Amino acid sequence: MKKKILIVGGVAGGASAAARLRRNSEEDEIIMFERGPHVSFSNCALPYHLSGVIDSPNRLVLMSPEKFISQYNIKARVNNEVIAIDRENNTVDVRDLVSGEVYKETYDKLILSPGAHPIVPNISGIENVKIFTIRNVVDIDKLNRYLKEIESNDVAVIGGGYIGVEAAENLREAGFNVSLIEATKQILKPFDYDMVQILHKELYDNGVNLIVGDKVESFEKDIVVLSSGKKIKASAVVMAIGVAPEVKLAKEAGIQLGETGAIKVDKNYKTNDDDIYAVGDAIEVYNSLTNSMTKLSLAGPAQKAARSVADNINNKSTINKGYIGSSAIKVFNYNGASTGLNESLIKALNMNINYDIVNVILNDKVGIMPEASPMHFKMLYEVPTGRILGAQAIGKGDVTKRIDIIATVIKFNGTVEDLKDLELCYAPPFSTAKDVVNYVGYVGSNLLNNDFKQVNIDKVRELVESNAFIIDVREKREYENGHIKNSTNIPLSELRNRTNEIPKDVPVYLHCRTGQRSYNATLALQNLGFTNVYNITGSFLGLSFYEYYNDKTMNRESIVTEYNFK
Amino acid sequence: MKKKILIVGGVAGGASAAARLRRNSEEDEIIMFERGPHVSFSNCALPYHLSGVIDSPNRLVLMSPEKFISQYNIKARVNNEVIAIDRENNTVDVRDLVSGEVYKETYDKLILSPGAHPIVPNISGIENVKIFTIRNVVDIDKLNRYLKEIESNDVAVIGGGYIGVEAAENLREAGFNVSLIEATKQILKPFDYDMVQILHKELYDNGVNLIVGDKVESFEKDIVVLSSGKKIKASAVVMAIGVAPEVKLAKEAGIQLGETGAIKVDKNYKTNDDDIYAVGDAIEVYNSLTNSMTKLSLAGPAQKAARSVADNINNKSTINKGYIGSSAIKVFNYNGASTGLNESLIKALNMNINYDIVNVILNDKVGIMPEASPMHFKMLYEVPTGRILGAQAIGKGDVTKRIDIIATVIKFNGTVEDLKDLELCYAPPFSTAKDVVNYVGYVGSNLLNNDFKQVNIDKVRELVESNAFIIDVREKREYENGHIKNSTNIPLSELRNRTNEIPKDVPVYLHCRTGQRSYNATLALQNLGFTNVYNITGSFLGLSFYEYYNDKTMNRESIVTEYNFK
Repeated sequence: MKKKILIVGGVAGGASAAARLRRNSEEDEIIMFERGPHVSFSNCALPYHLSGVIDSPNRLVLMSPEKFISQYNIKARVNNEVIAIDRENNTVDVRDLVSGEVYKETYDKLILSPGAHPIVPNISGIENVKIFTIRNVVDIDKLNRYLKEIESNDVAVIGGGYIGVEAAENLREAGFNVSLIEATKQILKPFDYDMVQILHKELYDNGVNLIVGDKVESFEKDIVVLSSGKKIKASAVVMAIGVAPEVKLAKEAGIQLGETGAIKVDKNYKTNDDDIYAVGDAIEVYNSLTNSMTKLSLAGPAQKAARSVADNINNKSTINKGYIGSSAIKVFNYNGASTGLNESLIKALNMNINYDIVNVILNDKVGIMPEASPMHFKMLYEVPTGRILGAQAIGKGDVTKRIDIIATVIKFNGTVEDLKDLELCYAPPFSTAKDVVNYVGYVGSNLLNNDFKQVNIDKVRELVESNAFIIDVREKREYENGHIKNSTNIPLSELRNRTNEIPKDVPVYLHCRTGQRSYNATLALQNLGFTNVYNITGSFLGLSFYEYYNDKTMNRESIVTEYNFK
Repeated sequence: MKKKILIVGGVAGGASAAARLRRNSEEDEIIMFERGPHVSFSNCALPYHLSGVIDSPNRLVLMSPEKFISQYNIKARVNNEVIAIDRENNTVDVRDLVSGEVYKETYDKLILSPGAHPIVPNISGIENVKIFTIRNVVDIDKLNRYLKEIESNDVAVIGGGYIGVEAAENLREAGFNVSLIEATKQILKPFDYDMVQILHKELYDNGVNLIVGDKVESFEKDIVVLSSGKKIKASAVVMAIGVAPEVKLAKEAGIQLGETGAIKVDKNYKTNDDDIYAVGDAIEVYNSLTNSMTKLSLAGPAQKAARSVADNINNKSTINKGYIGSSAIKVFNYNGASTGLNESLIKALNMNINYDIVNVILNDKVGIMPEASPMHFKMLYEVPTGRILGAQAIGKGDVTKRIDIIATVIKFNGTVEDLKDLELCYAPPFSTAKDVVNYVGYVGSNLLNNDFKQVNIDKVRELVESNAFIIDVREKREYENGHIKNSTNIPLSELRNRTNEIPKDVPVYLHCRTGQRSYNATLALQNLGFTNVYNITGSFLGLSFYEYYNDKTMNRESIVTEYNFK
């Protein structure tokens, strides 16, 4: 039977649903309403227009309404806003934003994919600055044109989420003086505080004026005033503190919202109305690791949900196992990726879960190959089961590969033992024979078996301040090029002959450059009868990254004589 | 209790076992014998010395005997060859290759990691050419020095396996006239014939004189004579037709060999002697997909086995789930990776398994980002379960990421449904919102549900020759820039208005550039009542790659008016 299906919103979720609906049925009438002038554009690529990586804003638009009709027989009505839903009569009111005319359309099924809008809080003095947000092609084009016209080079980005950081990076690449202002103590919440310091440093090193832990208090004429009293010049202010799901239309029609304030849907993305579905940034989804509802503003899940809806409408079976959340970002020369749980989330949700971490730095490919570089990797696993809970990786190389593998293992409820067993593709240009992913499996397995103990780099400052006994097992030459203050240098190559210099009555903390030599040293000392030995995960390289940005910006004393980032 | 452990062979397997043994126990005596002058070098990186990517041969050596003793208290005796095992008395005879002296060492446990040696068949006239093999640092240094000394630029590489292809590529990069000779009709057996054509083309395009399906018959003075009568000038001949496990020592000591001729081991890599283990290229392992024993000359599995042995010797539990085999290779501007089963292997082993394939070409990252490029992807899955059996990917971008994910899914016995559900990291510089891996899950699922039918690009020549009805659904402008001879151009955008031009009484074959538009066209026609419609997987882009090399080298008529590789 021929159905008439209306779709509110023509970007990721809406366009995917429409295309799948057409493939499922040639006879159905499909109308997609988009209040903006473009359907099917790449939201995620928007910031890259600011640096010129994507030169023309037109390139951001992937499909035109003309193509939708000619190739898919889908009516894509741009500049048409659905303003009301009459659930009783299965109709919607649509306003043609060009003519101003309001008309009705009937539906058999209605799919809501309205997205989420950038939050612009009513901060005092907001009329004194030029505010921009980044949601669509019009927004980014407007921002870009404005910046080209003005003489000043000063731009402030408020909010250190993905969009904020990408905007800051691309504006900096375009030559602007960019301030990136984040109210909490770190940017990019998918990364833990210890990991994200690498990206703090990268922004800082690339000349972005990164300010964390400071809030926008008010605005003066082309100036952002922070809680600390700092004043930041800004001829343009990009507001990127977060997004709020577009629920007005749904709410007014009596569609039920969930605990998060987003639209509540069932396993098939159906709302409390049997004829109305919802997908994308406007809905809440089930996080299968936290066992709670969450808003997940990601393109992949939106497209997956859209496809499910199109299939459900056509009586095809679909599966919904919930979400774990995987994401990635490029920040100048570094790539970052994360999946599943991290420590801050576990703490924020007060989750009752016993976990431990693996924190390692390993070469992303064979060390002697050009462009081999250290990858910082942190993984969380459940104790005592070894079940993988989440992971984060940051480095100049292929971090998404490793996090994708972990994300895959999480979907299968895999454990650290499973990581050990993975057979990954190896050739010197791509990886190492024992990949980072295998390696973290080994470390996790050793930790679970209580083969050794560790402390994380975020505890080292405390150790130094309390005069703990720290042994640097690198060679003398390495030690002389920068080391932890008051640490003792006993190279691994001399360790077995110098055990008499190591106390047995106090804890001993070992490190090297990346943690591998000190791991060997830790086991050697344990086997030689030292019972209170800890390997410092992340070691000197990790510590240098961890301390650097805060040292530089907080004017505090460094705990190392010199940093080492190699 | 203190144990004395001897290890035969100091490269991947041996060195890994030694290091893990030391971490497991500080008191054990560990002696590693290596008949060559180096322990712990990177075998896989050897070919990269030929192009200068790795400049000095010394850089290939990762650890010196001095470091082994100082850092690990492991005695690494280079230039020492174990020549006999006395299993009755738990001793070995060792020849010091420098002094010539033979001495005995006792052992509690013995680990054999002797590797495999390149096969050099006794071809008639072999004394007329300068033969080289590539197994260790000495070999590659010798070859490199020889090539620098001679005036001629002509080098032949015999054998198109990984080492042969990498040697050919690196020699070509160094400026030599390289002939790569492979007796069978294709190089690189981990790839199917349809996929490997991309790499045949890449070698051809980069000036390697690739000869497939022609065998070395004999040698004349600096000339390789082939079965076809062709004569190839070669002042140096690199023999890379394959390797044979080093089993002489084991065999003479009565250690049991397996059906493949390699050393037979149990789940813990123990031989038929309770005190003797074996790992690496000298053993056979269980392939969990073919359910048969196989020789797997890969560094990752060797290291994994070595670690298992070290743990088993120290009474730690280990798991051995068998192997699936994952590998990767760079060939000039293309990267290739594969895991699990491929069609040729299934046929070669005469496996009784019902499978189908997914063959797609998709962008490796958002198409509008710089360096986005098409990835050719082929996956095999079991019918009707959807269980993933294997996959191959070739492209300029990140193919190992996708194959690693598939390898991970295979380890968990995952299906095409699982691929659909994977949440992979997405940002425009890295991938697309719906990654290639998700997409092949969708296609596989559609095929399993009989939503559409397909034929592979390797059938198109036959279709053309039998005057099948082929519809090219690309736009007119694309069609005019090269198309399949005698194909009919009905652009997707005109399809619904031109169905009267399409016969209902014969099979109809559809294609576009990569298969996505023709997939939509296929479903549209089906929904419009055409029952005999096939999507040509790989479409015009795949076909261009598939036909090109053979067209050029076999002097046959092309089935396309012009190739298109973009």
